[in-house]
Amino acid sequence: MLYFKNDYSCGAHKKVLEKLFLTNDEHLAAYGSDKYTLSAEEKIRAACGKPEASVFLISGGTQTNQVVISTCLESFEGVVSAVTGHVNAHEAGAIEYTGHKVLPLPSHEGKIDAGELKTYLADFYADESHEHMVFPGMVYISHPTEYGTIYKKKELEGIYSVCREYDIPLYIDGARLGYGLTCRESDMTLAELADLCDIFYIGGTKVGALCGEAIVFTNTNRKPPKLFLTQVKQRGAMLAKSRVLGVQFDALFTDGLYFDISRNAIDTAMLMKEMFASHGCRFYLDSPTNQQFLILENSLMEEWGKVVEFSFWEKFDDTHTVVRFATSWATTKEDVASLEAALFSK
Amino acid sequence: MLYFKNDYSCGAHKKVLEKLFLTNDEHLAAYGSDKYTLSAEEKIRAACGKPEASVFLISGGTQTNQVVISTCLESFEGVVSAVTGHVNAHEAGAIEYTGHKVLPLPSHEGKIDAGELKTYLADFYADESHEHMVFPGMVYISHPTEYGTIYKKKELEGIYSVCREYDIPLYIDGARLGYGLTCRESDMTLAELADLCDIFYIGGTKVGALCGEAIVFTNTNRKPPKLFLTQVKQRGAMLAKSRVLGVQFDALFTDGLYFDISRNAIDTAMLMKEMFASHGCRFYLDSPTNQQFLILENSLMEEWGKVVEFSFWEKFDDTHTVVRFATSWATTKEDVASLEAALFSK
Amino acid sequence: MLYFKNDYSCGAHKKVLEKLFLTNDEHLAAYGSDKYTLSAEEKIRAACGKPEASVFLISGGTQTNQVVISTCLESFEGVVSAVTGHVNAHEAGAIEYTGHKVLPLPSHEGKIDAGELKTYLADFYADESHEHMVFPGMVYISHPTEYGTIYKKKELEGIYSVCREYDIPLYIDGARLGYGLTCRESDMTLAELADLCDIFYIGGTKVGALCGEAIVFTNTNRKPPKLFLTQVKQRGAMLAKSRVLGVQFDALFTDGLYFDISRNAIDTAMLMKEMFASHGCRFYLDSPTNQQFLILENSLMEEWGKVVEFSFWEKFDDTHTVVRFATSWATTKEDVASLEAALFSK
Amino acid sequence: MLYFKNDYSCGAHKKVLEKLFLTNDEHLAAYGSDKYTLSAEEKIRAACGKPEASVFLISGGTQTNQVVISTCLESFEGVVSAVTGHVNAHEAGAIEYTGHKVLPLPSHEGKIDAGELKTYLADFYADESHEHMVFPGMVYISHPTEYGTIYKKKELEGIYSVCREYDIPLYIDGARLGYGLTCRESDMTLAELADLCDIFYIGGTKVGALCGEAIVFTNTNRKPPKLFLTQVKQRGAMLAKSRVLGVQFDALFTDGLYFDISRNAIDTAMLMKEMFASHGCRFYLDSPTNQQFLILENSLMEEWGKVVEFSFWEKFDDTHTVVRFATSWATTKEDVASLEAALFSK
Repeated sequence: MLYFKNDYSCGAHKKVLEKLFLTNDEHLAAYGSDKYTLSAEEKIRAACGKPEASVFLISGGTQTNQVVISTCLESFEGVVSAVTGHVNAHEAGAIEYTGHKVLPLPSHEGKIDAGELKTYLADFYADESHEHMVFPGMVYISHPTEYGTIYKKKELEGIYSVCREYDIPLYIDGARLGYGLTCRESDMTLAELADLCDIFYIGGTKVGALCGEAIVFTNTNRKPPKLFLTQVKQRGAMLAKSRVLGVQFDALFTDGLYFDISRNAIDTAMLMKEMFASHGCRFYLDSPTNQQFLILENSLMEEWGKVVEFSFWEKFDDTHTVVRFATSWATTKEDVASLEAALFSK
Repeated sequence: MLYFKNDYSCGAHKKVLEKLFLTNDEHLAAYGSDKYTLSAEEKIRAACGKPEASVFLISGGTQTNQVVISTCLESFEGVVSAVTGHVNAHEAGAIEYTGHKVLPLPSHEGKIDAGELKTYLADFYADESHEHMVFPGMVYISHPTEYGTIYKKKELEGIYSVCREYDIPLYIDGARLGYGLTCRESDMTLAELADLCDIFYIGGTKVGALCGEAIVFTNTNRKPPKLFLTQVKQRGAMLAKSRVLGVQFDALFTDGLYFDISRNAIDTAMLMKEMFASHGCRFYLDSPTNQQFLILENSLMEEWGKVVEFSFWEKFDDTHTVVRFATSWATTKEDVASLEAALFSK
Repeated sequence: MLYFKNDYSCGAHKKVLEKLFLTNDEHLAAYGSDKYTLSAEEKIRAACGKPEASVFLISGGTQTNQVVISTCLESFEGVVSAVTGHVNAHEAGAIEYTGHKVLPLPSHEGKIDAGELKTYLADFYADESHEHMVFPGMVYISHPTEYGTIYKKKELEGIYSVCREYDIPLYIDGARLGYGLTCRESDMTLAELADLCDIFYIGGTKVGALCGEAIVFTNTNRKPPKLFLTQVKQRGAMLAKSRVLGVQFDALFTDGLYFDISRNAIDTAMLMKEMFASHGCRFYLDSPTNQQFLILENSLMEEWGKVVEFSFWEKFDDTHTVVRFATSWATTKEDVASLEAALFSK
Repeated sequence: MLYFKNDYSCGAHKKVLEKLFLTNDEHLAAYGSDKYTLSAEEKIRAACGKPEASVFLISGGTQTNQVVISTCLESFEGVVSAVTGHVNAHEAGAIEYTGHKVLPLPSHEGKIDAGELKTYLADFYADESHEHMVFPGMVYISHPTEYGTIYKKKELEGIYSVCREYDIPLYIDGARLGYGLTCRESDMTLAELADLCDIFYIGGTKVGALCGEAIVFTNTNRKPPKLFLTQVKQRGAMLAKSRVLGVQFDALFTDGLYFDISRNAIDTAMLMKEMFASHGCRFYLDSPTNQQFLILENSLMEEWGKVVEFSFWEKFDDTHTVVRFATSWATTKEDVASLEAALFSK
């Protein structure tokens, strides 16, 4: 069976795994103070061009969103997100569980619009009864989005400018950040992105690690909340053996590995995209990253399902379905060739 | 200054206040077990035609919504509401504060549509990833709505039928229930409404009381959550001197007082509505209850504001505003005549 | 049946009730901005000798504790309290419901000891693993305590001095504050008490009101949390008709009524105490306020229970029980005489 | 530097790590449905002699306690624990964060006593005002305890019998379960322990894994809460790549590896214990497991600290300190010999 269902089906990149092996017998400190965690944090700061940033490693993405959002918001605040944002739609209410509302904005292929954000904020403060409403205390975007789309630098500047005008931190969910930054349409480096937000996280789970996400508080605008690690512990999100995350991120941020393997996902995704296009497939939207969305006739979807695993996304109409094919850091050009052979060689 | 700003600007109906006076020196039990609370509960059960119902008295509306919703939902559930519903828009995030998401449906002049509710529920359970989403665990409607509109019996039957199909309780926010039931377009009695939902509350604050709302668990479908009073206490919502609420509701449900004074609000509202119509005013929507919404030119709004208090509702366009004029149990026909004189006699 | 069970069995003092009557027909603003609330706040500030204080009126005591503690604590903080403190023992977990731990200290007849508090705080910060523990973020005491005892000025100075050394706010639960300040052993005025803490509340429910407590943020040390009223709303604790509380406290703080009626409870309590002593009753502890605790043989307790209502407090040993007799602002000397006659005339 | 500071300073047992390596390239399902997780669950059920049990794998111990306790308790319930229990003392308030109180019982070298538990429960229900208190909804014990002590079978039977009498589930925190079951004083097998509680977890982090704990709902008495995985997700505790935990537990429960490596910790701990005893060291208590507690003069503690890492535990008196020396699955007899040489060869 071929496998294009998602980007978290394999283990870790072999350099990551090897480092876990090589360091295994060392006695190390715990709870975030081991030397590999410290080294990883240093390398991430360097990669971000933010020597003053604070970096924290957390096991998973939903947990990361939950920890960042719930520790940064005041009790009376909620987080603004595209209605399609992961925090609004697919985290089983993890944000509300911590007492905060997700304030939905319209989604444009997964993205929010700076103008609509500004109108929303202006209307909120103009409303005479806004003290009986949930205050917008953070703006959340995902980059790339849940639909594989990315923000161009100008768009991000627009959003961040509104955030600064209203003194609201901008938080970027980078579960697939490597794929967003290395895709061909990207016009931003990691350092440029780090300048255009307050907090973001660099996803490891979907980009070469067994697990782990790296939260970056840029500190230029936003410092971590007080006693952040105590709050991480309080939310059940602290690993005793922090080395598990530290070693992995140390490997991923050595010699640009994170970006190299991200580029592989993009290269194979673009190959796959061209392949689908060459066979006349219909795309749901134009994604520049590792997630590609097709509109398939239901009967064809069923037939394809016999030879390749891919994701059901959403119903398109009574006879068609939107499906997702995803590549990852582990996908090879041979995998794409096999996919073409399996689907179109008849 | 004339006053049509809202329906909670006066104290209590004089019979309510008198009963507080008459019973003041009695030594009574506390925490919901005093004899007037018990009597009020009995009278409410009778008025609802639900001898087996459980009734609880709570101080205020937001608190009531918070207590009912948070105690009835499972941890993984949220409450479905019109996007304009009070719980979604104007309670400062009181529902999310208790850990639960409000799941918004489109609003049709404040109301939700049974068909849209059904589609939403069907789509939810059809979604392969719904176990990573917030489960719909209750449907919330307000009657009358925040826009003064009401559900006709057929509409409520439609919604409740969907709820029963999916085994989801229907909860009616009756902050202004008296006004909804006694308006001329109403085709339901309290007993009929009680048959078409699982839980509802009868608003006192806006209908003749100093404070207080009566929660009714019909029990035929839905019983109160276990140790409900302990949970009320845990949420800070239990008054030591429960007599304060008990005496008031006992008075309101003696000899139909609640409905009589509700009818007064409707009578004066209809008089006011006709009066505005006779002067060619433009209505924002056709409300059959005590809240009337006009679209005013901004300059006129300012002028009127010098002689009468009313509510800014929302911006209509750059030169017009939606405003609300509300009557209540305490409004007199003379008040409406004075209003006409003040606004239109020039 | 005679009634000495508690201090919340009657309605309101007649001057309080009269003011509700007299102001009933006025159209007033809502949500804390009505003129009587503003007037009450001003009078309370004056009574406290704190012209710069912030005052807020809330319906009930558990709610007040919940609102104050949950809005003042950081996420990682808990509240220190005597193990017998109301917040630790008898609020159904209202504090934990908001996410915060109650950190218990030993109780000395309901009171905490400044030295033990200091040791606790010193040990906490000396513990190498304290970042994995709950930080003490507030000290809670009740005055009078749940056992009727009071803090002498020196004791309060000692506690507050420790609090200031550790920069932790001191919050006084004054559910029965009037009784604590007017008792014969009290060596503090309200203004002196207000100088020796950061936040306190003046109880109305047990001292002459139908309901209501007045929170005072002294502001010299501690200001109210940001957007406090929004947070009150979010916790379901805001009454639309804030006049209900405003009018009552306005009456209670006019011409010293609050203190006059408090003194009545003390006078009748001391009469009752002497009466019990003269009959050789055994006291559980020496209470200077309106709550008196006796140790009764179980058979006598049963017998007395036929003619007077009092409270079971706790088991003393297999054959004895601690019971409470409480006077209030409404108790008369005749009531005490009747009590003596009923219990001892045989 | 020698290392006896804790039992989580090394990586994973080499068979665990190898299995991560060997399975790394396989495309596997996610969110708990991968084949290694299913296999691990099956092997754990077999090891527990509970073919009908439900098993779930979670990343860390605090998270496990938080997830189990918060999903099993009703809103109005708290968890009973020794005052020294991890959930009460060292989880930064993770239980209270979810809204629940920890109800402390006295600690006897880390253990609770069945008789005291019974008295506590009897008194609770005998208290007339218990509906204003937090209901005991679960009993939590750790085995071994935070002080290395274990419950003998009779003790556990006593506790469980009280729990069943009051219909309260018993939950065992088995962060170091392997060490408790394989120590020489243990008179219980895993299967016997599984028969004497409702829920427990088998610790991996401290017993051979990089991370991971296995929750077991025995199902004979207590089933998992409804939609448990959705609730796990909601609490941020679900790993996308569940294989990370599945593969590790699959290795640990193959051919008795978990117990073999647990025995190693015990063997080296007993060697160390004898060694300390032979040099006349003073023990704080008599621990049969891998954690050994000594009372050291402060000056000696400082001296030893130069050659070996161990844990400060608590102040004993002004001149003495309680310290902890821990072995683990990775400690060798040579390590103990080196320790003796380093400390006592002079």
